[in-house]
Amino acid sequence: MQEPKLTKKGRETRARIVAAAAKLMFDRGVAGTSVEDVQREAKVSASQLYHYFKEKRELVLAVIVYQTEMVLSAQEPLLSHLDSMEALRAWRDAIVKLQVERQCAGGCPIGSLASELSDTDQGARIALVDSFMQWEHAIRRGVRMMYERGELTIHANPDSLGLALLTALQGGLLLTQVRRETGPLEAGLDAVLSYIDSLRV
Amino acid sequence: MQEPKLTKKGRETRARIVAAAAKLMFDRGVAGTSVEDVQREAKVSASQLYHYFKEKRELVLAVIVYQTEMVLSAQEPLLSHLDSMEALRAWRDAIVKLQVERQCAGGCPIGSLASELSDTDQGARIALVDSFMQWEHAIRRGVRMMYERGELTIHANPDSLGLALLTALQGGLLLTQVRRETGPLEAGLDAVLSYIDSLRV
Repeated sequence: MQEPKLTKKGRETRARIVAAAAKLMFDRGVAGTSVEDVQREAKVSASQLYHYFKEKRELVLAVIVYQTEMVLSAQEPLLSHLDSMEALRAWRDAIVKLQVERQCAGGCPIGSLASELSDTDQGARIALVDSFMQWEHAIRRGVRMMYERGELTIHANPDSLGLALLTALQGGLLLTQVRRETGPLEAGLDAVLSYIDSLRV
Repeated sequence: MQEPKLTKKGRETRARIVAAAAKLMFDRGVAGTSVEDVQREAKVSASQLYHYFKEKRELVLAVIVYQTEMVLSAQEPLLSHLDSMEALRAWRDAIVKLQVERQCAGGCPIGSLASELSDTDQGARIALVDSFMQWEHAIRRGVRMMYERGELTIHANPDSLGLALLTALQGGLLLTQVRRETGPLEAGLDAVLSYIDSLRV
């Protein structure tokens, strides 16, 4: 994906193209974004854009990587330390707060790409599996730490609980985007968090 | 939405157009489906199609209504009677089984429309709010019945639990579509179902 030997200026140009593509694809969808749109938005020539991305598909893969970094870094430092009920609830509050700040519009940048691309672009789907896996691993790491410290009942399945949190989060972001209010996001995350809480010893 | 005075043949033609549009939009997205594509798929003339739908936006609204009926009726008779843990688990199993039968592709027809349209078509978003509300009400009715019969602790919030189930379902269908396996769907629904189970008295 990444060009191996880019100058500082080259890296900056490439980054500007990817950020422009990410913005347009988030606003209008991948299908609604042409390579020419990206070129205009990033203020680069057609040959400059072609130098970095030979086709739209390559640009889409770069956008997936970019949005994954954006989404996960926006949840730090909370995401890396989800190993207590307090930390999980603080993470939940931060996610809900972010949606309120965004007037509940936009949904999840990764989830939106997933919904649009999973059945039409196999390369993108594989990249999205990896994106969600990074997210899932971060959540699971915290819940598993609680389990391994003996804070959850021996019958708990920390990996499944971590995945359930990501699932509730994705469904919650989608329904919040549709309804323009955070009720579904809160209901989904709170049910799974309360369940985890009920498994504490 | 519905033309008030259609002959039987008129209703059939209209239904054929909507079914064709729904199929194409499910396969390629709304942005990837033109009115001409629908015309070809439904085997109708441009003027026939125009007789029923003056613009693509009207067709999209009809597709939302159509997919909502399809999705909800596919869950019957289970969906109308979710008032016990057995019924909830049977519904969960049926949803997982359906995804397995579909090789985990496609995702939720309503969820996919929601992800694509919520930020770009206000009329569609309003229609999708109504779609999800129908779905939510059906689930909530069952959980609330359990609550009102005194089967759940007085501290339970049946409406929030019903919404949490729909949220986990939506996130589960999206992640299942991405990963091509039902793990996320099962983890999400099972966490909320186990939580409901833990609230039984």
